[in-house]
Amino acid sequence: MGKYVFGVDLGGTTVKLGLFETEGKLLEKWEIPTRKEDNGSRILPDIAASIKKKMSDKALDKNDIAGVGIGVPGPVDGNGVIYKAANLGWGKFSVKEELAVLLGGIPVEAGNDANVAALGEMWKGGGEGYTNLVAVTLGTGVGGGIIVNGRILTGATGAGGEIGHIHLEDNETDSCGCGNCGCLEQYASATGIARLARKKLAATDAPSSMRSHKDISAKTVWDAVKNGDALATEVAKEFGEYLGKGLAAIACVVNPEIFVIGGGVSKAGEILLDYIREPYKKYVFHASRDTEFALAALGNDAGIYGSARLVLG
Amino acid sequence: MGKYVFGVDLGGTTVKLGLFETEGKLLEKWEIPTRKEDNGSRILPDIAASIKKKMSDKALDKNDIAGVGIGVPGPVDGNGVIYKAANLGWGKFSVKEELAVLLGGIPVEAGNDANVAALGEMWKGGGEGYTNLVAVTLGTGVGGGIIVNGRILTGATGAGGEIGHIHLEDNETDSCGCGNCGCLEQYASATGIARLARKKLAATDAPSSMRSHKDISAKTVWDAVKNGDALATEVAKEFGEYLGKGLAAIACVVNPEIFVIGGGVSKAGEILLDYIREPYKKYVFHASRDTEFALAALGNDAGIYGSARLVLG
Repeated sequence: MGKYVFGVDLGGTTVKLGLFETEGKLLEKWEIPTRKEDNGSRILPDIAASIKKKMSDKALDKNDIAGVGIGVPGPVDGNGVIYKAANLGWGKFSVKEELAVLLGGIPVEAGNDANVAALGEMWKGGGEGYTNLVAVTLGTGVGGGIIVNGRILTGATGAGGEIGHIHLEDNETDSCGCGNCGCLEQYASATGIARLARKKLAATDAPSSMRSHKDISAKTVWDAVKNGDALATEVAKEFGEYLGKGLAAIACVVNPEIFVIGGGVSKAGEILLDYIREPYKKYVFHASRDTEFALAALGNDAGIYGSARLVLG
Repeated sequence: MGKYVFGVDLGGTTVKLGLFETEGKLLEKWEIPTRKEDNGSRILPDIAASIKKKMSDKALDKNDIAGVGIGVPGPVDGNGVIYKAANLGWGKFSVKEELAVLLGGIPVEAGNDANVAALGEMWKGGGEGYTNLVAVTLGTGVGGGIIVNGRILTGATGAGGEIGHIHLEDNETDSCGCGNCGCLEQYASATGIARLARKKLAATDAPSSMRSHKDISAKTVWDAVKNGDALATEVAKEFGEYLGKGLAAIACVVNPEIFVIGGGVSKAGEILLDYIREPYKKYVFHASRDTEFALAALGNDAGIYGSARLVLG
């Protein structure tokens, strides 16, 4: 097996690529634009060309390369087949096979981007040293990746780890992007936290530093929490109550060693975990009460790390 | 590898044993009492003696036996170590190693009883032909077993599949056996269904055939549902709403191909699934909306089938 591996993180705007040693050392990373014209048909050829150029620049040949891993924004099954990636214009096809052909037979593995990021955090991030973990991405939405015995739990239709859509609130009247009402994502994503804050501010005349912001973001809320703002603290408690309850449900299913919390919201830091832990312990089954919590450590590089790791089995 | 395999289902009162061909044909089954004296120290020697006697009766030697699998009532990790089985008097030790020694080196695998039953239903029961399934046991409590790619999801502390303790109801005032309030088990177990019925009957003067029963059981409720009893139908809807919501949460985590519903409550038959499916579809993420539902098929034999299957990897 070759000494090097490529990790590719395919996003809606840019493709991140990384060249790694198989032990996990990142040697170089770069980006290319995601060209979505022609139903996304240029994307994989662009990626293949970028990898081939890097190999040529570094004087690497096929035998030096253990493989190429790629994370894509849509459900991917255990055979590397994507079901749909609406924002790339992609329908159902084998990413794994198509990219392997474009690369002249270099082995390719493909996975869902959130799942692959979870694998990256296990390999070299907040979950290093663990083999059973749940990675939670608190971004525009809430994504998840479940790792069992060191491997991604893909699920029957590639929807393993879609934890943002666990139903938590019967009394919700706003709709989630998925069409349901009361999903975890509506309370724990960046968007959800801002929504909770706006509702809270509208419901009372109580003073809050958040009122001076025209556009309230999750960062507005967490900054205010750190400054002792009472209303922001109520929002943080509400966030923690929902997320703690959701993670407790997940623990009753997969009983992980650790939750690794990432995504934009996690930039708030350790204070975030303080608001999650207590409700988690309240709602969870006793056998999972000591599950650990950590912040994700790889930031935007989790995807290239994880897709590289995907190749290594 | 030998042509035969033993499956052992260790319960609090009796031990069920089965002799199988490795293809899954059950040749013979029998029971011995579970002797719990002396902190359960007689249990494994009794099991070993019973297996050795059967081998002798059938003129089978060690080379004929692929192995012995055993399901035990407590959390078991991936190495066959049980953490605790309070009702057997057992603390933490390796069931796998100890039984293997007693059997003179025949390979042993051990798993949690609910998880092992799930594996049995996958092998030769309601989930035959599937490799990603969730088995749900609706008995005195609610148990579960998660099978991913044909293998039990054990979890970090052997508590994978403890789905009965997913928190579903913030307004519950009665306590669950686990100490929490509002667990799935409080609404979907046999005990839980009877509890819902008693509360419903106490809250109204409306007529119901259930009122003629001194002790209301889950069977009382489902018999009344089948006879068109309006109050019993309300209870069935409440049961289905909670269980559907719980299974939807599970699907957002592991995205199974199929749910296999077993345990005493499942004797009510297909009508049970009718009450679960609709709320499930309402609450679940769209990618898991077509997950199938089936009734368990092996009844009390699921444990011996599954423990035999455990040996086959």
